[in-house]
Amino acid sequence: MSKDCIFCKIVEGEIPSKKVYEDDMVLAFHDITPVAPVHVLIIPKKHISSILDIDESDAENYIAKIHLAAKKIAKDLGIAENGFRLVNNCGDAGGQTVYHIHYHLLGGRNLSWPPG
Amino acid sequence: MSKDCIFCKIVEGEIPSKKVYEDDMVLAFHDITPVAPVHVLIIPKKHISSILDIDESDAENYIAKIHLAAKKIAKDLGIAENGFRLVNNCGDAGGQTVYHIHYHLLGGRNLSWPPG
Repeated sequence: MSKDCIFCKIVEGEIPSKKVYEDDMVLAFHDITPVAPVHVLIIPKKHISSILDIDESDAENYIAKIHLAAKKIAKDLGIAENGFRLVNNCGDAGGQTVYHIHYHLLGGRNLSWPPG
Repeated sequence: MSKDCIFCKIVEGEIPSKKVYEDDMVLAFHDITPVAPVHVLIIPKKHISSILDIDESDAENYIAKIHLAAKKIAKDLGIAENGFRLVNNCGDAGGQTVYHIHYHLLGGRNLSWPPG
C-alpha cells in the first residue's frame, strides 16, 4: 500500500467505490467520470505505479488476474457479445492520471479509432 | 496456428512484418497503418481469438509475457519516459479487426481522452 495513493485507499475501503468485482488480488469499480455506458477500472490490490514497474511475478499474477477479471466483468455487465476495449495509460503522454496501474474496460457503444 | 489467420501467417513468416521484438511466446511488429509515431502490435504466437478466449494458463503465460514485452519495447523505442498507451480491442464494438488477440502499443505523441 502507498500512503497517498487514492486507489490504495479505495482498496482499503477508506474511499468508497461502486465495486463490480473483487478477489484476493484484484478490485474493479465504476469510473467516476465514465466515457462509455460501461466504464470500469480494474486494478491490482498491490500498489504498482505503472507497466514500467511490473516484474515477472507481477505480470504472472496481477496482470494475468486483471485480464481474467476483464473477461468475467465484460460477460457479467453484458458487453462481451458486442465487444469492448481495454486500455492502459502509462505516463503523462499516455494520459495516466493516477499512478497505481489500472485498466479501463470500456463498452456499451462502438469505440472509434484511433484510441485517443 | 489457425490456417486463415493473418497474424498466424506473420508468426510463421509466410507474411513479412517489421519485427521489433520476439521471444518464444510473443512477437511484436510495426502496425502497417500507424496512428501514432510509434505504433506496435504485440501478439501471442499461439492463436487465441480474443480476451474472451483466454484461460488461466493463457493469462499467466501469454498475457503476462505480452505486458513484459510492452515494457521492454517502450524502453527500446524511446517512448517509456514520456509515456504510452496499451490498447486491446475485443469484438466488433471494440474495434477488433483481426481475431488473433493483439495489443496496440501507441506512443510518440500525447494520447487524448476518451480513447475512441
